[in-house]
This record gives sequence, structure tokens and C-alpha cells, in this order.
Amino acid sequence: GERMVLFGGPCAAESYDICMETGSQVKALCEKLDISYVFKSSFDKANRTSSGSYRGPSVEGGLDILRRVKKDLQVPIVTDVHESYQCAEAAEVADVLQIPAFLCRQTDLLKAAARTGKAVKIKKGQFMAPEDMKYAVDKVRGEGNNNVFLTERGASFGYHTLVVDMRSLPIMRQYTPVIFDVTHSVQQPGGKGGSSGGQREFAPFLARAAAAAGVDGFFIETHPNPEKALSDGPNMIPLHQMEDFLRMLKRYWELHTLHH
Amino acid sequence: GERMVLFGGPCAAESYDICMETGSQVKALCEKLDISYVFKSSFDKANRTSSGSYRGPSVEGGLDILRRVKKDLQVPIVTDVHESYQCAEAAEVADVLQIPAFLCRQTDLLKAAARTGKAVKIKKGQFMAPEDMKYAVDKVRGEGNNNVFLTERGASFGYHTLVVDMRSLPIMRQYTPVIFDVTHSVQQPGGKGGSSGGQREFAPFLARAAAAAGVDGFFIETHPNPEKALSDGPNMIPLHQMEDFLRMLKRYWELHTLHH
Amino acid sequence: GERMVLFGGPCAAESYDICMETGSQVKALCEKLDISYVFKSSFDKANRTSSGSYRGPSVEGGLDILRRVKKDLQVPIVTDVHESYQCAEAAEVADVLQIPAFLCRQTDLLKAAARTGKAVKIKKGQFMAPEDMKYAVDKVRGEGNNNVFLTERGASFGYHTLVVDMRSLPIMRQYTPVIFDVTHSVQQPGGKGGSSGGQREFAPFLARAAAAAGVDGFFIETHPNPEKALSDGPNMIPLHQMEDFLRMLKRYWELHTLHH
Amino acid sequence: GERMVLFGGPCAAESYDICMETGSQVKALCEKLDISYVFKSSFDKANRTSSGSYRGPSVEGGLDILRRVKKDLQVPIVTDVHESYQCAEAAEVADVLQIPAFLCRQTDLLKAAARTGKAVKIKKGQFMAPEDMKYAVDKVRGEGNNNVFLTERGASFGYHTLVVDMRSLPIMRQYTPVIFDVTHSVQQPGGKGGSSGGQREFAPFLARAAAAAGVDGFFIETHPNPEKALSDGPNMIPLHQMEDFLRMLKRYWELHTLHH
Repeated sequence: GERMVLFGGPCAAESYDICMETGSQVKALCEKLDISYVFKSSFDKANRTSSGSYRGPSVEGGLDILRRVKKDLQVPIVTDVHESYQCAEAAEVADVLQIPAFLCRQTDLLKAAARTGKAVKIKKGQFMAPEDMKYAVDKVRGEGNNNVFLTERGASFGYHTLVVDMRSLPIMRQYTPVIFDVTHSVQQPGGKGGSSGGQREFAPFLARAAAAAGVDGFFIETHPNPEKALSDGPNMIPLHQMEDFLRMLKRYWELHTLHH
Repeated sequence: GERMVLFGGPCAAESYDICMETGSQVKALCEKLDISYVFKSSFDKANRTSSGSYRGPSVEGGLDILRRVKKDLQVPIVTDVHESYQCAEAAEVADVLQIPAFLCRQTDLLKAAARTGKAVKIKKGQFMAPEDMKYAVDKVRGEGNNNVFLTERGASFGYHTLVVDMRSLPIMRQYTPVIFDVTHSVQQPGGKGGSSGGQREFAPFLARAAAAAGVDGFFIETHPNPEKALSDGPNMIPLHQMEDFLRMLKRYWELHTLHH
Repeated sequence: GERMVLFGGPCAAESYDICMETGSQVKALCEKLDISYVFKSSFDKANRTSSGSYRGPSVEGGLDILRRVKKDLQVPIVTDVHESYQCAEAAEVADVLQIPAFLCRQTDLLKAAARTGKAVKIKKGQFMAPEDMKYAVDKVRGEGNNNVFLTERGASFGYHTLVVDMRSLPIMRQYTPVIFDVTHSVQQPGGKGGSSGGQREFAPFLARAAAAAGVDGFFIETHPNPEKALSDGPNMIPLHQMEDFLRMLKRYWELHTLHH
Repeated sequence: GERMVLFGGPCAAESYDICMETGSQVKALCEKLDISYVFKSSFDKANRTSSGSYRGPSVEGGLDILRRVKKDLQVPIVTDVHESYQCAEAAEVADVLQIPAFLCRQTDLLKAAARTGKAVKIKKGQFMAPEDMKYAVDKVRGEGNNNVFLTERGASFGYHTLVVDMRSLPIMRQYTPVIFDVTHSVQQPGGKGGSSGGQREFAPFLARAAAAAGVDGFFIETHPNPEKALSDGPNMIPLHQMEDFLRMLKRYWELHTLHH
């Protein structure tokens, strides 16, 4: 809780080069701005809207990329797990296992992640009241793993859009530290037909608001060229804008930290 | 599409006796009322709100109960699968594999279920627009399995309640047959603290409305004594009320079938 | 409660001729089908999305058209009131004063309508829980007027669309008779930029569903040529389809009446 | 846009003494903190949930209180209007006429308010998409009055609660200045049976978030003793907490102003 945390990187581990280009720049920024950095990339995108969407590298390929990035960048790694059998394998590379929002109530997955001993980062389901996330936290703690935190990424609000209820931040921080997922909070689920759209233009407004309401860190997907990204392009922050973006967040985060 | 279909039984396969008591009575009713019957029970409840909630029998125990029920009742069986590794094992017993609503976008699970060759029944996520369910259907069909249908069970509407948008029925029937899940459409997620509540009193209203709007069948959890059921008691229809309930649905279903 | 009721006519009293063409045909249909008919048209559209939208005839002109229609068609009349001063004047012509959904909490308007002694039909606000409509009913009854009923027309569901929660029908019928507003339940508020769009294709599904859930009557806007209507064209049922539409509703309404 | 603005005071003009006690303290705070102050109180509460709720002083009595407060405190006044006939009379006292959220689409009321030449403050309806508020602004401007601004106070989110969508702030600021209504954004409509409840504990989180996202000012109802207030007690900020509250808001507002 003493330092602002950033989970960031390209949505999918498309290639070692993209990961390294992104990760090295973000790492340098975080060192300059006194932010704790965790490199994020998915080795597998298991819940795309349609089969035709990019699925990510193969599991082995994706984890192998993450392993090399971790070694070469010397940063901790967070990645998603979608079924309980993946947890042990992912935990050989990752320092933090992320539970996707749709899966936040899957007891087996939560417990398998917890039992790896790695930190477990649970995204709040779009269908969940924030106070019910305490049961997800308890499922992890029940396995003897206290290194668990939650992530806000928006709630269902009619069809094809999400709304961030800022009340969720203080509610969930009663249980454990909370990360604000800038990228997926502006997602428009299924809004582009067979894939999800995004409203990247609102990302700075929501991110600042969350910083002022109070969070422990941020999750931001970024890419050297979001228009060419194979997944979630419409939501990602372009890499060259990250310095300004992080400086902005840091100002609000520090003001909050100073007074609360 | 020519006969009304009922998926029904106790929420969880608590015991062979409960399953047989429920299944034999519902089977007899369905024969009397000219309804196609598929026995439903879960061998595992993987997404309970909290760890303290009843989880169901062990996987082996639950599937074994289902196997005996199927043999002794001579009815087809539907059951849930939560991770892709379960599909093959469940398919040895089940005729229909049901994909839970939270998991309707998990590509691996949909494909694993599809590849068993069994029918796949996908519940619409509480966070999904009905038109986006066509991508879930396509994921199953993409594996060469055309025996797929969808289920309506309500959409997120603020916190702790769901709303059934009847527009979803004609939208989803454009893609494949649609079942209306009476039981979970009146669920109040997390509404009882660490478990979900229910509004059983609204079940007949929503079920009739769905029958009139047009569906291919119904999913109803029933139990000889819902107050003592180990899971989803507040939503289940008491077994002794099932005859009246099914007669009512049949009237509206027939009126619809006659004219559309 | 013994006969199905229809409130129907063109959205706005555009002209005497349109009103008479519509009203005479609907009246004849209702006589054939044993339905109680109340002619509906607005003398003023006070809450259009934008100033540029058609506002209706002038108040005097509109009421004058309604007065002639009532005399020539010999049918009761329902029309909207938007401010309390309009109630007395509208009540000289109308048999039923309708309180628009946005205004269902305006105490002065409800009381002024109640004090005319005419029937008061209150539309449920898009922002209201159905159980809170009992306070609106009580405001009318508190003025000594027991001739009050409620109307369902959808609830806010994110932006630019509504959802009909069929639970609202039995909830509100605990207090007073309930009408289902077919036309506005498929409205897409602001969905066409400066005016509201509609999803007329879902009207029969929602109307049948409401009939099966149980209502006392229907509100349907109809027009000889909806594409040319000056207001709410995208939602109105074409006049030439009304016979089939009403026959369909009557079947479900009768089935419901027979058994409940 | 250069100074932070506060609209504040007791919800209803219960008495001259309460108004003066509240207004004089808030005025002094605003002078100390370099905030522009507009005294707010309603002379009439026309849209209470139930008839039994406190309605406010009589119109004449209420306006008379406001007139004395204005003269004695030497501050501008904002008050609500509910029907078009009230605008001229209220404008004799008020410097700003506020259009309640439920009424934000009532063209006559907007135009009557606009024609007084006073500033018009329109609250966004709980049922409105933020981009559709530009039509409400245009209705005022169409009368030649450019002194118009908007207010965010939450959107319908299921029943009995609201959600503040922070995206609405930058969307609406494209059209005109925007005020964040701290008090009503934490309202729980109808949540206490015949009256509305509130979640005052979330007020500082939402207010800070709005300040960071960017607004032109705040609307805060405050009272020396909210528990004894005759209206909206559960939402109001206790008067003795206002200094800390305003200091907090000012910090985030200044940080935003400095950088954007």
C-alpha cells in the first residue's frame, strides 16, 4: 500500500519482441516515477466473443515468452488462468495469477490458484455486487494464501456497455487491496459484432476518478501500436502515451495517499 | 420443436433417493402431459457464492448417482460441466452437457463439450446481449456438433437481482432452439449474504410469459422439500406443485404452437 | 376486470381525419372482438427529446379534435396531462387522464388529475421500482378518487433501451388494475439522435408475454401509416395489422382469464 | 470555469433560521476557500415518493424565506421549479432555476425557465444517456438564454439504487458546464419504503472521483442536524463536516484545473 502499483503490458503475449519493447519501456517509466511494476500479458485468450478472434499464442508458446521476458526484464509477471489445471504450470512463471472476471465465482479455479502460493488477483465479475467479492477473497484465504487482491473493471449496464461504480472501490478495499483496470473498464462487450469494442477516450477520466476515490494500483494494457494489436486494440493505451498517463495517475494517487 | 421439452430435477444430485423420488414423479407427469423429459441434476456445484455453501457430491459420486438414475428411470440426463477436462467423463453418463451462464464465453469448455458429440445446452450469461450468443453457438457448431441450444436465465439488473428480457427469446431462436430456465430467472444473486436468494413467487408469471413469447422448452428445478434442499432451495418449485405448473405451461405452449 | 380493455389510437392528434380513420376502425374491431375500447391521442407532446421534434397540435386545437372525435365516435377518450393546470381543461373532454411516466412522482399533477373525478391512468416511471408505484396510487386515492390504474412501459436498462420486467405486472396488480403499454415498451429512448427509435418487431412478443403474465388491458398506438406519423412512428402498429394483433392478444388474455 | 462553484444549503427551506444558520456558515467557508457560493434550498418538494412525506413550506412561504435569506446573506440563490407557471415567480427571488431530474425533458418547463433570463441548471434524468442532455440544453438556448448548465446525479441501475457513470461528465461538458450533485448521487430511491434512503458514507468517494474526472462545481445539501431534517436527511452532509469536505474537494479540483 505504500507505493503505487502498475500491472501493465500488451493484452496478449503476441511475440517476445512486442513483450520486450513494451515491457522495457514501461519498466523504465515506472523506475523514473517510483511505481512498482508487474509485467502483464496473457498466454491464452480463452473467452473471446467469437471463435474467429485471435486466441493468443499456444499455452506453451505463451508461457515460454513470459519466462524469457521475466528473465530478461527482471520484473514480476502476472498472467490469466482459465481452468484449474493451468494454475500450477502458469505459476512456474508468474508471480501473480489473475482470475478473469467471468470466472470470479469458480471455486476450483480460485482454490487451485491459491494453492500455488502465488499472489492471486481476482477481477470482479461484471455481474457481481462488490460486497459479494469478499466470498471470492475468502475462497483464496481458505487455502492459506493471504496474498490476494481484487480488481474493478466495470459492471453490466444494459447491453454492450459497462459502468464503473466507484462505490465498489471503498467497499472492496475493506477486504483486501484493490486495483483499477483502466483498460477493460472502457470495454464495450460485443459492441463490434463478433468482437468487443472500446472507448479509449474515457480511460483517463475513469482512471483519475478511481485514483481520487482511492485504489492501490492500476492495470493498464498498452501496446506500441494498438491499431495493429491482435486483441483488445480499441481499449489499449498507446505505449508512447504511457508516460503522460502514468504521471497523471501518480499525481492523483499521491494526493490521495497524502490525505487518507 | 414439435413437443414441449422439460429439463427438470433437483438442483444437486444430493442422493440417489432424492433423485429417484423426484425423477420418477416428473417422468410420470411428463408422460401424462405429452412432454419430453430430460432429468437434470448437477454432480458438482462449482460456482457457489461462498466456500461454505454446499458443493454437491464428489464428482465421482455425483456421476455415479446420475448413471444409476439414468439406468433405473430410463430417461436422458443433462448435467453441468465447469472445466473442459470434465466433459468427456460427464458425457459417459449425460446426454446433454450444460454450460453454466458464467462460462458461456469459455471457448475451451464449449469446444470440449461439443467434441463429446453430446447435445450442448448453453446458458446465456447474465452479462451477455442475446445477439452475442450466436458466437457461443458457432463455437459448438465449429466443432461439427449441430446439436446445440440456448437457455435464457435473466440478465444483470443492478445488484442482487436479474431481469428477464423477453426480447432475448425471439432473438436467440433465430440461431437455435431456446429453453427458458424458470428456476434461475427468479434467483437473487448474493441476495442472502453468502448465498443466493430467490423469488419463487414470480416463477409462474415469468414462465407463462416466456411460453407466450415462444420457447422450445423449460428448465425447472424441483425438489420434494425445497426448504431442506442443500442448494438453490429458495428458487425450486416444490415437487407436489409440478403437475399444476406443467399443465399451466402446456396450455400457453400449445396456444403458441397452434398459431406460430 | 371482466373484459379486456384497449387504449388505442394515434400517438398525437395530428388531425381530425387521422383520428377518425384510426378510431372508427379500432372501434369496429373492438366490437367484433368483445373488447372495451378507449380512444387515445395526445393533444400535446410536452416531453419530446428535442425542440425540433413535432410537438402536436396546439392545446386548444388538440382538445377540440378530441372533443369532435368523442362525439362522432361515441367512445371514451384518454389523453395525457403534463402540468396541473391542464387537468381541468383536459377533463372536460377526456374520460381518463394519463400521467406520463416521467411525471409519475409529481404530486401536484397526480392530485390535480385526481380532483377532476375522472379516471387516472399512471404510467410507471422508467426509474421506478414497481412496488413504489403504490405511493402514486395512494396520492390519487388520497383525493377521494378510487378510479386509478397503472401502466407498465419498461424500465431503464443502461442507455438507449428499456427492459420490461414482467414481475412488475403481478406486483402492481396488488394495488390496482394494470395496463401493458405495448408501444412504449419497445421504445429506444434517444436511440435515433434527437428523437426516440423503436423496435416494433418485438411488440407482439412482449404483448403476448404480458397477456400470459396477466394484465387488465393494453395500450397500443396505431396509425394508418406509421412511417408518415409525426410522432413515435417507429413504435406504432400499422392500423391494418391491428385485427391480427388484437385477436392474438385476446387468445392469451382469455386463456389467462379462464384459469386465474 | 475559473473558480470552483458550490451550490449548497438545506434540502428544503424548512425555516428562516435553518437557512441562515446553514447559509452563513457555508458562505464563510466558501470565502475562506475561494469558492463561489450559491445558496440552495427548495421552496416546495413536489416529487416526494409518498404523499405522507414532508412537502416543504407553502410556495409563498418558501419563496419568502429565500427572499429574506438572499437579502440578509447577500448570496445568489438557486431553487427548483416543477411546473412552468412557477418560473416567473421563482425568478423574482432566484438567480438560478433548477430543473429537477425527472423533469429534464419537459419542454414547457425548460422554456419557461429559459425565458425568465435567469441561469438554468438542468439535472440529468436518471433515465437519460448523457449525450441526450444536449437536447435539453438546446431547448434553453433556443429561447435565447445561454446561461445554462447541467448536473450529474446518477443513473438508474436496477431498482432502489443509482450509479454515477463518470463518463457522463466529459460527455456533458462538451455542451456546457457541469455540476456534480454529491447529495443525490448517493440517494437510494424508494429504498426506505415510502421515502428515499441514502448512502452518505459514499459521498466523499464519489465527490473526489468527480473532481478528478473534471467538473465545474458541486451541489451539496447540508444541514446542522441531518437526522432531524424534514427531507433527504440520509443523504445530507452534516454542516460541521463541510469544511473538511470542501477542503478535500478543492484539492482535487485544483489539481485538475492545474493540468487540464
